[in-house]
Amino acid sequence: MNRIGVDWGSTSLRAYLYARDGTVAEQRSDRRGIRFVTAGDFEAVLREFLAGWLLPGSKVALSGMVTSRNGWVETPYVDCPARLEDLSKSLLTRRVADAELVFVPGLCRRGPEPDVMRGEETQLLGLDPAGDRERIVVMPGTHSKWVLLRQGRIESFRTCMTGELYELLLAHSLIGRIAEGVDFSEAAFVAGAERGHASATPVSDLFGARAGVLTASMRAGDVAAYLSGLLVGNEIREGIAAFGAPAGPIEIVGARLLGERYAQALRQLGLSCRIAREDVAARGLWRVLEAVR
Amino acid sequence: MNRIGVDWGSTSLRAYLYARDGTVAEQRSDRRGIRFVTAGDFEAVLREFLAGWLLPGSKVALSGMVTSRNGWVETPYVDCPARLEDLSKSLLTRRVADAELVFVPGLCRRGPEPDVMRGEETQLLGLDPAGDRERIVVMPGTHSKWVLLRQGRIESFRTCMTGELYELLLAHSLIGRIAEGVDFSEAAFVAGAERGHASATPVSDLFGARAGVLTASMRAGDVAAYLSGLLVGNEIREGIAAFGAPAGPIEIVGARLLGERYAQALRQLGLSCRIAREDVAARGLWRVLEAVR
Repeated sequence: MNRIGVDWGSTSLRAYLYARDGTVAEQRSDRRGIRFVTAGDFEAVLREFLAGWLLPGSKVALSGMVTSRNGWVETPYVDCPARLEDLSKSLLTRRVADAELVFVPGLCRRGPEPDVMRGEETQLLGLDPAGDRERIVVMPGTHSKWVLLRQGRIESFRTCMTGELYELLLAHSLIGRIAEGVDFSEAAFVAGAERGHASATPVSDLFGARAGVLTASMRAGDVAAYLSGLLVGNEIREGIAAFGAPAGPIEIVGARLLGERYAQALRQLGLSCRIAREDVAARGLWRVLEAVR
Repeated sequence: MNRIGVDWGSTSLRAYLYARDGTVAEQRSDRRGIRFVTAGDFEAVLREFLAGWLLPGSKVALSGMVTSRNGWVETPYVDCPARLEDLSKSLLTRRVADAELVFVPGLCRRGPEPDVMRGEETQLLGLDPAGDRERIVVMPGTHSKWVLLRQGRIESFRTCMTGELYELLLAHSLIGRIAEGVDFSEAAFVAGAERGHASATPVSDLFGARAGVLTASMRAGDVAAYLSGLLVGNEIREGIAAFGAPAGPIEIVGARLLGERYAQALRQLGLSCRIAREDVAARGLWRVLEAVR
């Protein structure tokens, strides 16, 4: 009886085949994120993707945007604060080729300014435990998450649209039109991060990159890195504004290059941080499988 | 000898034929903003547009993006603080069909975070004078300007990318994808404005509209108005952060509908404001013509 974890996001699809002890025996990844899968095709895509792994009696945990309205099986949101047990109570199951699929719910923070996540909650389950102390986790990406963990619970979180805004500005704005080149200037990134963190006026600051080039105080080749720094520095300011500066290091969960960039910005701003182990999604999915064993 | 003012922006072209006393005798407008004019075609477009007005000996003042790098004749930036006389010293002239064209320079605020404007400086010249008192003027638009006037000088200014960001988000972001309908909900606009003004975390707040719909706490039809309010409220916060709250009313210069929306937001936030007369561009261009008489 194989146990398999599937992390199925908007733009990527990853699967882990576990050994008996929960270590990852094999893994696969693919670009068929849910954005590229037509409704009705999810089962066929999954069966093809898991070919050779999916046997009768297998158990598969799935998390990410595959559980959203535009995904395969929409799971309800579980309210914050939430523990693994709260998520486990709201799993949805479905049978495919005699295997059991278990869909993990997303998380919701209710209130006048609600917020949601899908997929990140499973990654959070995969973090190394750290007892009862309060922790802040940042999960950089299209929709970055800042998460407050307390006594082993996911206490609260806040989404910052950093990644999406960066892409939009470069692809479609008048700032993007003035940007040149693809080299990443570390100095420009750091200057942007310092500005974004020190100032509370990001929408005005954005225009500074354009004005800088027009007045020859910034090179067109530095615009992209400066903008990236500005948005990341601003996100750090917004995140700290939401949850305060933590006692311990801020933990970074995400793809290596992006994670290192956030680490650079945080250190530059005098904030202690560390990059979490890379296999948090695989470990979180394993914890779900263990909970429904 | 006709005197003519031309306000030639990115997306629009307007011209004023003045009577001897400086009142507008006739006006024309057109969609041939500089974005839609090929380099080399500016003179032909202008001559056609001013047909019947442009006589030998005519004097034409031109301002706006037509004086930018992507325009017809690039004028240098004049540094802030600046008075009309400072602008008049940097006019560029050119002859067309025996008429004299006078191109007004843009304004620049130098420093570590420079800023630029083209066209708005001429509108500011057209405001009613108000003696020596300090004034704040907001000029809503794609790239909104907040301007500090002091003792009749344009003392400083700051650009906020509100309009462009709103368009980008609705057209290209995941928030835009969730927005429905075109009705403008005043209640949603006001709620957004209050949030945007009270909070200093706009990039996180933006995601709130999406999360609101996903958690059924916001109607998809309210997303656009809420976003608009959020960005305008945030702009007001950023503008006040730059220049402080003024002693007198904040003066609003801009298109009628947009100006009224800003007035609504400002009043809702307890800030006194008034909408400036609509013909500031025509009056500012007239002042330039008078200065080079």
